[in-house]
Amino acid sequence: MKMLINSPETVVADALRGMAAAHPDLDVDVERRVVARRDARDSGRVGLVSGGGSGHEPLHAGFVGHGMLTAACPGEVFTSPVPDQMVRAAAAAHGGQGVLFVVKNYTGDVMNFEMAAELAGEDGIQVEQVLVNDDVAVTDSLYTAGRRGTGATLFVEKIAGAAAEEGRPLDQVAALARKVNECSRSFGVALSACTTPAKGSPTFELPDGELELGIGIHGEPGRERRAMMTAKEIAEVSLGPVLEELADIGPVDAPVLLLVNGMGATPLLELYGFHGEVARLLADRGVTVARALVGNYVTSLDMAGCSITLCRADEELVRLWDAPVQTAALRWGR
Amino acid sequence: MKMLINSPETVVADALRGMAAAHPDLDVDVERRVVARRDARDSGRVGLVSGGGSGHEPLHAGFVGHGMLTAACPGEVFTSPVPDQMVRAAAAAHGGQGVLFVVKNYTGDVMNFEMAAELAGEDGIQVEQVLVNDDVAVTDSLYTAGRRGTGATLFVEKIAGAAAEEGRPLDQVAALARKVNECSRSFGVALSACTTPAKGSPTFELPDGELELGIGIHGEPGRERRAMMTAKEIAEVSLGPVLEELADIGPVDAPVLLLVNGMGATPLLELYGFHGEVARLLADRGVTVARALVGNYVTSLDMAGCSITLCRADEELVRLWDAPVQTAALRWGR
Repeated sequence: MKMLINSPETVVADALRGMAAAHPDLDVDVERRVVARRDARDSGRVGLVSGGGSGHEPLHAGFVGHGMLTAACPGEVFTSPVPDQMVRAAAAAHGGQGVLFVVKNYTGDVMNFEMAAELAGEDGIQVEQVLVNDDVAVTDSLYTAGRRGTGATLFVEKIAGAAAEEGRPLDQVAALARKVNECSRSFGVALSACTTPAKGSPTFELPDGELELGIGIHGEPGRERRAMMTAKEIAEVSLGPVLEELADIGPVDAPVLLLVNGMGATPLLELYGFHGEVARLLADRGVTVARALVGNYVTSLDMAGCSITLCRADEELVRLWDAPVQTAALRWGR
Repeated sequence: MKMLINSPETVVADALRGMAAAHPDLDVDVERRVVARRDARDSGRVGLVSGGGSGHEPLHAGFVGHGMLTAACPGEVFTSPVPDQMVRAAAAAHGGQGVLFVVKNYTGDVMNFEMAAELAGEDGIQVEQVLVNDDVAVTDSLYTAGRRGTGATLFVEKIAGAAAEEGRPLDQVAALARKVNECSRSFGVALSACTTPAKGSPTFELPDGELELGIGIHGEPGRERRAMMTAKEIAEVSLGPVLEELADIGPVDAPVLLLVNGMGATPLLELYGFHGEVARLLADRGVTVARALVGNYVTSLDMAGCSITLCRADEELVRLWDAPVQTAALRWGR
């Protein structure tokens, strides 16, 4: 499999060097693998730190900036960052009011962030954690105990980031982040597997004429293989389990935030068409979409496919979603 | 080839329906295939219209909004919009001060925009045109007489859009757009061919272990096939012809605007790594990068690959580049 890289060994460092060159407003430590806002220290605000394996870009480093993450620590491709790296990110993000770790539910990430929280605590940084586990497709997969963390990470980071920007204290920011996660559910579909630089061949075989339902973001297979479907049919089978779980969750008459996410190699032309089907189905079922975001945000390298994330959102969550954000990948407001 | 679509025949209409659902601030006419700002009529400003074949998203409809395009008219995949459609876009964009057509140099587009300019003129809309032809790789290709229009389209639309937003008259906006095009050069590389919905198979064969240099954005082959290279080597062979042509152009001691563009299926992780190599090479050659943009902006469906566009930019161009923009795909500033 051909890739636009120098070598599998240097992929992450090379990307960070490119980020540093493209975004001089960010503090990119290529050696120590931390991307941070320059204005975090002594900010008097809660710091938001996330990280995880690389290969999901723009998640997480692309979400560092005003109104979202304070720092991110990218691991090797599909591999958790190490605790030391997380501690450095915590130190870079600490503005005097403690730090919230946003952790996707994968065994390695959970273990390492746990250890990092202890180490940061010893350094005098108060740490809270939120575990993101929104994926309804699979429990107890290859990489997880319980549900996996996928698209809802973006909602958690955006909304908790807005709350931190407002100057709210750590316990409130953490509670809000947990609420966003609890009100969010996702489902993903692959039309092709992805290829990691280290392996150089697809992580699973997906024959012509078939798709994989319920995939995660690490090239792990999903819950079911089916014959290829139309965009409308894919929207139906994906939305079904999400809406089913969401029925009992959050303020049930509240509108939703919607993320229609590309897995990396699906053209935006197709993704918008897919979004049209999702929007129509939600309207048919009486679900009001307060805000929709369409694009490649939580990706799986060169996988073709998409995921849907819904977050049941009361007025406060919508307001915080709308709050200004200035990052490499997500920008709006002042 | 699997696609996230309902049918090849409905791809463009489906995508427009999805755009309408995702961006209620835009006036999306699905039937007549025009995407327009809602505040264009009687704005007292010059209108900016662009369009071309679909399959290059977010170009062009993703660039409609404050500070950039006033309206866009998407054709079928890799097929020029028809003159009637362009005239409707011109009418939607006409704020009383005339309209500038931004035309990528492909035979069909040029012919149709020419006819549309005449028809709009008969309707009392003053029209100027700018022809974008930045691609140094190929002249007189399958689809063009002269150089093709690719990545520079984004620079032209952004900078001319900012000038129109400032209230400058049509002749000045047109002159500025032509200057941006004249100061811009591009080069693209494919690691894989793309697949159109209608054809359903790759537009050309690119064996494992080979890449294609100098590709366009319509799946047409490039100028040369080579054995696969590293990101650094690809940056070198791509930048070479761009810098060579740029040597005599514009204010030669001025900095450049840089677009490192993904063709659609190249992961952002790889694209940032590639950008790092481009930035390093430019620094080595004493070229100052005033602003850099990295991402999938002028794509070719599901093609894996990238392109580099440089625009030699004086202070005014940089200032207009920095001016606020609020579109689906490009947002910054107030």
